[in-house]
Amino acid sequence: MMPRSLCVIGLGLIGGSLLRAADAAGWTVWGTSRPPEDADLAAAAGFQVHDDIEKALRLTEQTDALVVLAVPMPAVEDVLADVHRFAPGCRLTDVVGVKQPVLDAVARRAPGVRYAGGHPMAGAAVSGWAAGSAGLFRDAAWVLICDDDTDREVWLQVAGLALECGAHILPASADEHDEAAARISHLPHVLAAVLAAVGADGGPLALGMAAGSFRDGTRVAGARPDLVAAMCEGNRDALLGAVDDALGRLGAARGSLASTGALASTLRAGHAGREALVAATAATAAAPGGTMTVDLAKPNAMERLREFGRLGGVIRAIDGTRCEVSL
Amino acid sequence: MMPRSLCVIGLGLIGGSLLRAADAAGWTVWGTSRPPEDADLAAAAGFQVHDDIEKALRLTEQTDALVVLAVPMPAVEDVLADVHRFAPGCRLTDVVGVKQPVLDAVARRAPGVRYAGGHPMAGAAVSGWAAGSAGLFRDAAWVLICDDDTDREVWLQVAGLALECGAHILPASADEHDEAAARISHLPHVLAAVLAAVGADGGPLALGMAAGSFRDGTRVAGARPDLVAAMCEGNRDALLGAVDDALGRLGAARGSLASTGALASTLRAGHAGREALVAATAATAAAPGGTMTVDLAKPNAMERLREFGRLGGVIRAIDGTRCEVSL
Repeated sequence: MMPRSLCVIGLGLIGGSLLRAADAAGWTVWGTSRPPEDADLAAAAGFQVHDDIEKALRLTEQTDALVVLAVPMPAVEDVLADVHRFAPGCRLTDVVGVKQPVLDAVARRAPGVRYAGGHPMAGAAVSGWAAGSAGLFRDAAWVLICDDDTDREVWLQVAGLALECGAHILPASADEHDEAAARISHLPHVLAAVLAAVGADGGPLALGMAAGSFRDGTRVAGARPDLVAAMCEGNRDALLGAVDDALGRLGAARGSLASTGALASTLRAGHAGREALVAATAATAAAPGGTMTVDLAKPNAMERLREFGRLGGVIRAIDGTRCEVSL
Repeated sequence: MMPRSLCVIGLGLIGGSLLRAADAAGWTVWGTSRPPEDADLAAAAGFQVHDDIEKALRLTEQTDALVVLAVPMPAVEDVLADVHRFAPGCRLTDVVGVKQPVLDAVARRAPGVRYAGGHPMAGAAVSGWAAGSAGLFRDAAWVLICDDDTDREVWLQVAGLALECGAHILPASADEHDEAAARISHLPHVLAAVLAAVGADGGPLALGMAAGSFRDGTRVAGARPDLVAAMCEGNRDALLGAVDDALGRLGAARGSLASTGALASTLRAGHAGREALVAATAATAAAPGGTMTVDLAKPNAMERLREFGRLGGVIRAIDGTRCEVSL
């Protein structure tokens, strides 16, 4: 039995929700937070909160707890330096929105930890402890990184935690995660910002006319720009590729509208993309068409998980070292 | 007293909802629809539906009813030719998403009608009679065109109908409407299509990871591409300007990300735009800061309404020819 103790560093929307969800699932949990308002709110809600990160991490060493990095990307290096000082051999995961840069930072700053990275796909337009809840991860996707050198014992523990929080697991390599996240998480924030600015340039009449299409398309522009910038800038290389794809498609739409007056091919491609999203969502919600088992005790397990992840495979159950992948 | 009879041509989402809402408000209503499925559903719901447009329009002539054009832009010219043949001097309004092209078409095809154009800001991602409801316009903005040669009697009648449907009125010139609509209604559809296509290019893993930001940002890409194309292509000139603004801002974001790695100015401008939207919405929902009266019996009334519209003015009550504008 692995210890069911959890130390959450960072008590914002994701970290704060994870503290609550793990507590509700019966884990022993404690946390620490640099922003004092999140720490105060968590303590007021009855949780064990430590003022300084050293105390929180030393407690981890004593209990072999799992440590969760739940801070924005720009704070990751400093926190990892603390991890290396106060809990150099701990079990570690994270919930940061980019994975290869965190993997690199872990190797550089805390080379002794046993690490398996993750990224729960939840929350965007709000932030802080107050916006979180124990149910945030219910029916959400939680990406778990399956690189060949990922620590398998920690991976299994984080996977169990994710399932206990009500999420399902998507297996992927760090690079694959970052490329996909640029397309479906970081580009949406950039386009929402562009749309909000162009709309507001239309003045009070335009804003008064704004209905569902503008409201939906700009919702995430309401998120704190510094947090969004940290998230997007941390995935710079992959995001540049996604922005270039968007510029190419938008430029083609512009050219077609100006020359022939037609937007049909742009709109048909978009409609097909949206239908693919709806179909993927329905497939995830439905009973699986087939189930494969991948045993993490086997040498090629991580490679097989990545292959299934590329095909849309989802893990909903784990028995010992055996992961059931639904396709 | 103006006659409270309404002939709705086109029984899709907007036309079908207007038929229901006017009926619920005590108007005598009938309709006609080219797509037989909308006509059948409306008839099955107990409404008076005429198979051919001639019958529906001849009835209008006998009763001095208000005619509502609720067809997509590409069908407008043909329907106006029918209006000119069968009800050449009727009262006419429309709910089409562009206004200057409809105004031009009316002048060309049905020069004898008494016309006041409008555009209720409701619905986008769904279409057809089945998607409509009598409550669709509740708390929605309904733009009414205030050009100097707009028919004032018809304008007052359409304004009364909009208020009875639960909407509030935004006064604007046709050009101002089209420019604003390009920014907050047509550009959102183009950007949603671009985002949906770039996301789907990421394959099953990306679609499986898609959370709120991608779902919200692509929602209107689920609308029928032919209807969206008709709407956007009909506003080509203004939409080109809005797309160019978006290309400029997205290109600047790309350049900044590639050179300095920073997205802060893009994201801050977007956040400010979204905050302006939230503030404008709150101001519309709150009790008005001040109320001005514009009397349509006065010669410069349309000019004054346009001025107030530019400042974010909203009409919620009309007494005779006197419009109360809240600012």
